[in-house]
Amino acid sequence: MEQRELALHDEVVALVQAGRFALAAERLLAAFAADAADVLARLPDRERLQVAMLLPRQEMARIAAELPDDVRTETLEQLPPGHLAAVLDAADDDVVASVLRDLSRDRAAAVLRMMSRASAVAPLLEEAEETAGGHMTRAFVSLRAETSVADAVAYVRRVLRGDVYGRDLYVVDANARLEGVLSLKELIIAEPAALIRDVMHANVISGHTDMDQEEMARTVQRYDLFALPIVDAAGRLAGVVTVDDVLDVVQEEATEDFLKFAGVGVDERALGPLAESMRRRLPWLGVNMVVALCAALVVNQFDHTIAQVAALAVFMPVIAGQGGNAGVQTATIVVRGLALDELRRSDLGRVLTKEVALGTVKGAIFGLVLGLIAFGWKHNPTLGVLAGVAMFLNMIVAGVGGVLIPMTLRYGLKIDPATAAGVFDTMLTDIMGFFIFLGLATLFINRLT
Amino acid sequence: MEQRELALHDEVVALVQAGRFALAAERLLAAFAADAADVLARLPDRERLQVAMLLPRQEMARIAAELPDDVRTETLEQLPPGHLAAVLDAADDDVVASVLRDLSRDRAAAVLRMMSRASAVAPLLEEAEETAGGHMTRAFVSLRAETSVADAVAYVRRVLRGDVYGRDLYVVDANARLEGVLSLKELIIAEPAALIRDVMHANVISGHTDMDQEEMARTVQRYDLFALPIVDAAGRLAGVVTVDDVLDVVQEEATEDFLKFAGVGVDERALGPLAESMRRRLPWLGVNMVVALCAALVVNQFDHTIAQVAALAVFMPVIAGQGGNAGVQTATIVVRGLALDELRRSDLGRVLTKEVALGTVKGAIFGLVLGLIAFGWKHNPTLGVLAGVAMFLNMIVAGVGGVLIPMTLRYGLKIDPATAAGVFDTMLTDIMGFFIFLGLATLFINRLT
Repeated sequence: MEQRELALHDEVVALVQAGRFALAAERLLAAFAADAADVLARLPDRERLQVAMLLPRQEMARIAAELPDDVRTETLEQLPPGHLAAVLDAADDDVVASVLRDLSRDRAAAVLRMMSRASAVAPLLEEAEETAGGHMTRAFVSLRAETSVADAVAYVRRVLRGDVYGRDLYVVDANARLEGVLSLKELIIAEPAALIRDVMHANVISGHTDMDQEEMARTVQRYDLFALPIVDAAGRLAGVVTVDDVLDVVQEEATEDFLKFAGVGVDERALGPLAESMRRRLPWLGVNMVVALCAALVVNQFDHTIAQVAALAVFMPVIAGQGGNAGVQTATIVVRGLALDELRRSDLGRVLTKEVALGTVKGAIFGLVLGLIAFGWKHNPTLGVLAGVAMFLNMIVAGVGGVLIPMTLRYGLKIDPATAAGVFDTMLTDIMGFFIFLGLATLFINRLT
Repeated sequence: MEQRELALHDEVVALVQAGRFALAAERLLAAFAADAADVLARLPDRERLQVAMLLPRQEMARIAAELPDDVRTETLEQLPPGHLAAVLDAADDDVVASVLRDLSRDRAAAVLRMMSRASAVAPLLEEAEETAGGHMTRAFVSLRAETSVADAVAYVRRVLRGDVYGRDLYVVDANARLEGVLSLKELIIAEPAALIRDVMHANVISGHTDMDQEEMARTVQRYDLFALPIVDAAGRLAGVVTVDDVLDVVQEEATEDFLKFAGVGVDERALGPLAESMRRRLPWLGVNMVVALCAALVVNQFDHTIAQVAALAVFMPVIAGQGGNAGVQTATIVVRGLALDELRRSDLGRVLTKEVALGTVKGAIFGLVLGLIAFGWKHNPTLGVLAGVAMFLNMIVAGVGGVLIPMTLRYGLKIDPATAAGVFDTMLTDIMGFFIFLGLATLFINRLT
């Protein structure tokens, strides 16, 4: 697969460099849309536009659907408005909505006016981007319950065309309210004389237009659906979200958690623009700097102790670092458990008990190891005991913090539990590690010097 | 949704506590399989088994498909072999394979012998678990290219039953080799007199049985498929992987990256058993401990310097900690870019240049801030300059390490780039931060005291 794609890439690049844009476009047309999009995305901006202009509108729409969001907007907004309108007329509803949302208000309105499907698409622009409404398509088939199977088959044969979602058929009443669902397969194998009412499933799993995309994805995944019908506030069937969009959302949300955890911006890409990476990362580093200075203040309280026993500075980072890693382990598990809905508010007691128990074991093991090393290395039994005890206590702090930080972010502050949970947790174990170790050392300073 | 599920949960728990298992089973039968599975999974082991025994085999198979893997195995392996065989006869192929794989060899063989579908299922057990072969089902419809559309419709109506995948139909030759694909929709709207050959797509995207599940998921996602046909080594169509399984794989793989990054075991669950969490986390903490002790050795080299200037111990953790966070930011972006296939080997130069540039800016900003704070706080201009320079250099180290560590894991060692990348990167910035700062301080010790 990758081989085939690389060959296509090299061929198209060579053609573009030779100025043979029409031939390059032809090669892309013969490829799968996803492969063509990949090659197109890697061309320099000007060349990409020149090739894009040469692609038939229908094909350009299909390829545009596969481009990364930023490349798509960048390319399409340079097309003349009439050309863009024609491309969008051939594109899937969710692509149209996403492109128009990214354009300036004036330009979006101008393009929309030129589209022949303007009236069908306009309502979608009202939906918020990260909701079920923002992902749905209006190209689905609806039936009435009192139709016979034979009539429904004839109707379906007439209306099912290329871009209409056809794996499931939706049954609605006179007010367009969702009453049932059946798959095309079930329609095909049903008795022709039966009524749709008798073969449909009346218990339909559906979402509403303002449902968050994460919940939408979870519903599709939970019930193994190929598509989720979406109803509006009045209960009318407004559209359908298909599983290919859900796959992208699942990927996106998982990435989001991972990036947020590390205090990196949600949409940052490895090869994205420098200024954007800067804007997304600096704020968290700023927060981190403030917290690190708090840790420095703690150490500063004990500078006389350190001046007397420089060996404390040797073991200090081990205690803080090991606590930080243990805390990140716990926080990672908790954040992921919350994201996958395996962990609820009522589970707090259970998970806290478990992590304190784990912290006790981790602390006993690594406390003993560090204690013996410190004693053996510096030949001071008190130093060994203090280092061991500080490690032990800091591992328990790590477990408690790893549970409480994400749980508080989620249920206390009602924000995403992944938000910089890693940053906060590392800092907690730094501060507590320094405080416990240096505090104990100050108390027993006579035995250390 | 959650409300409905909670109500079901409370009701079933109350019935179980009252010993009314038959009624509890009845309630579960009326619910969606995923909801019933959720309630069942949260019952205590003994009660769960008692309710499970009362569920009709067909329904138990559907509910079992939705149970978490460990709960499923635990529950099913306590069923009498004959009962289990009957349940598995009604279950989807991938569920059967997964359950039989988890049983002991003898018991799996015994159950398999009692199954009426033994011959159909046995070959699936040969497939490795995390491959396309391990996820496929053999319940699909295949057609011959020379059949007419009308005959194909009649055939499809005969063979399409409940658990057969029917959204796409596969065209094979006399040797069962995959020749084409068409959707049920395309079959239904085609001219009855046409031949399948004329309406099918001959350019089929397919996978092979030993394809890694991550690549399988990426292919389905890339080409917006509802199912991926899987061929064996001889090119024969062996089965089909449907998108609901792919959704689970995408979720699983994203979770895996996130957990691995933090040095946590891949399958660990927040509420899973304590001993398992221990077994998965301790090895990485052990690695971390060794690396932390290396950092301690570095600090120890400079203990005379610290004894003279205790203020060094105050700023040391700030420099190391800030570097660690910056490094984790970079590594997170790179690991995710590699996982999503946005970042390839040939992009190394570009991403390294970008991250060094970012590190320079981060270093300039936070170096200046720390330098001014250190100077203002300790009234020593040399200390300010040294702290600032060490911070500056460590931020560049962080950027380089954040790129090179995951890229080396992936392309050098050919292992998952997420593997403890966070642990390694933090340790690199600790060691280098201490070395640079304390080394500089030792060089300029005369100006510090």
